[in-house]
Amino acid sequence: MNITINKTTEPKQKPQDESSLGFGKIFTDHMFLMDYTPEKGWYDARIVPFGPIPVHPASTVLHYGAEVFEGLKAYRTADGTVQLFRPEANAQRIIDSAERLCMPAPSVEDFVEALKTFVSLEKDWVPHSEGASLYLRPFIYGDDHALGVHTVHHNVFCIIASPSGSYYPEGINPVKIMIEDEDVRAVRGGTGYTKCGGNYAASMRAGERAVQKGFTQVLWLDGVERKYIEEVGSMNVMFKIDGEIVTPALLGSILPGVTRRSCVELLKAEGYKVSERLLSVDELIDACENGKLEEAWGTGTAAVVSPIGELSYKGKNYIVNDFKIGEVTQHLYDELTSIQWGKAPDKYGWVEKLD
Amino acid sequence: MNITINKTTEPKQKPQDESSLGFGKIFTDHMFLMDYTPEKGWYDARIVPFGPIPVHPASTVLHYGAEVFEGLKAYRTADGTVQLFRPEANAQRIIDSAERLCMPAPSVEDFVEALKTFVSLEKDWVPHSEGASLYLRPFIYGDDHALGVHTVHHNVFCIIASPSGSYYPEGINPVKIMIEDEDVRAVRGGTGYTKCGGNYAASMRAGERAVQKGFTQVLWLDGVERKYIEEVGSMNVMFKIDGEIVTPALLGSILPGVTRRSCVELLKAEGYKVSERLLSVDELIDACENGKLEEAWGTGTAAVVSPIGELSYKGKNYIVNDFKIGEVTQHLYDELTSIQWGKAPDKYGWVEKLD
Repeated sequence: MNITINKTTEPKQKPQDESSLGFGKIFTDHMFLMDYTPEKGWYDARIVPFGPIPVHPASTVLHYGAEVFEGLKAYRTADGTVQLFRPEANAQRIIDSAERLCMPAPSVEDFVEALKTFVSLEKDWVPHSEGASLYLRPFIYGDDHALGVHTVHHNVFCIIASPSGSYYPEGINPVKIMIEDEDVRAVRGGTGYTKCGGNYAASMRAGERAVQKGFTQVLWLDGVERKYIEEVGSMNVMFKIDGEIVTPALLGSILPGVTRRSCVELLKAEGYKVSERLLSVDELIDACENGKLEEAWGTGTAAVVSPIGELSYKGKNYIVNDFKIGEVTQHLYDELTSIQWGKAPDKYGWVEKLD
Repeated sequence: MNITINKTTEPKQKPQDESSLGFGKIFTDHMFLMDYTPEKGWYDARIVPFGPIPVHPASTVLHYGAEVFEGLKAYRTADGTVQLFRPEANAQRIIDSAERLCMPAPSVEDFVEALKTFVSLEKDWVPHSEGASLYLRPFIYGDDHALGVHTVHHNVFCIIASPSGSYYPEGINPVKIMIEDEDVRAVRGGTGYTKCGGNYAASMRAGERAVQKGFTQVLWLDGVERKYIEEVGSMNVMFKIDGEIVTPALLGSILPGVTRRSCVELLKAEGYKVSERLLSVDELIDACENGKLEEAWGTGTAAVVSPIGELSYKGKNYIVNDFKIGEVTQHLYDELTSIQWGKAPDKYGWVEKLD
């Protein structure tokens, strides 16, 4: 892939205070862009100064939700190396997401090359402080300039980057989660397994209601029977029930998270009993009531793992593990962050260093 | 509402040949824009020259599907009057769509005033030829410049307009429809009843597969039981079975179409037996096999009514009404288009003339 680079003549000042970065609010000096048409394939790969993209008012992305995205991070290790975590997994997932929406996606190789070239250029934007990283947001959107509903002809692949603070600036705190039994996020046969815009739009109202009731996020049930646990807001979810690690199986309506997969692989390698299976809300509530729910946590790129201290279902609240972070949860957090920030050997081959 | 108008200094040439307009490809000289923040409410209503909108690369609309839209038409009558068809129904529906996505929408009054002011300015763009009209596309999109998943703060309401040709330049032709039993468009508890971008993104793949197999669109089944008829591609659907007009009831996963509602109201006023109810695919196929399916048609703003001449389910094809347009279908088309183009008295009070 030939990537042309047009550097900004007005570089921004980098954030002085990394403790107040927040998430996804500040952007680096450049962005990566590449276009696609069926005739030309992907073409004109370029890095240009970060700035507004002129969008035609009839563009597909403004009307018909033609948009898929990824999220991953660049980490700075103690020796100054910048590295990515399993970028091929994100590349493959955006291919799967795009396929569901009848959109093209770059090859795994081009996706990773684009990421690495872009992050190399923005290397100085990768934060130095504990837990902070450069959040990377690759996305593809449809950009035909016509209102007929049809497969998109012109598409754009873009990468932007945002230096983001530690998810836990004051240490890991368990969160309160509300099991949602009204709105539905996704259904088998739909787009639940993709990172497409429509999934997030559909999830906003329940998330908002949960926050108003004092919860951090919702736990989704399946859209068919409203019975099986699916995922937490923007994370996958795992439970330790009577010694067994349980996480919902990937049956088409759940996002196949890279952190989820890494947790499963890591726990299996260490000899834990891990089951990817159907888990009904009744089984979960039974486990709460019988003291068999030992731990619960979410997994995702932003938080890595997020302990769940309380579950609420149909107005009843259940405290998990005395509202303390559990042993497996803490272990996963420590193992994954050590690999990501280069503090531990990369024994699973998950890390991709920049040249 | 105070709408400022900034007229273009470079008006485009209007299409000379109205027979080749197509749908949603050509746009008028201007667009309507209005902004919203929770602090200010809707503000800065303005009509400006039509052109690209600068969109921040982290804008909510590019990532999280924060977009709802409407579609309606401005019709030119024989005496030159320009009129709209039930714009209040579109205003109410975009309010309902936006509510599901936790987005704000303008009031019914402001929506209609914006439309009327905008169409008045673009009056000369309303086509003169039989069956052609000015398609209007109001839409709302979320435009926060941050990657955190949260309720959108800054939103934009926009209206664009496209002179569009007759849907049936060569007369009405029945279409072939494939009943989709793999992909799912929507599920109760989800966003199926809204006109949000994600619904269309989710429907693209099945639509594409149907076209490749020689069908015009798909007929969706419900996402829970994969059993009940929902809607056709971008239209609602109606059947005449053994003398009864049947259309799927609005239970949360089906778009409440303005044309659907107008057909139901018109048929009921004329004494037809109309049932909005659950209709299973088995009942429909039984009716096909027993010769009781007398007519089938889609309803929507673009086509008004679209006769269905063939249904395909699990590889078997069923011809409807000898692949000819049925009596009720033709009657609905004639009645509605006569009202819309001012050829018949507006006896239901559906027409809104521009001043």
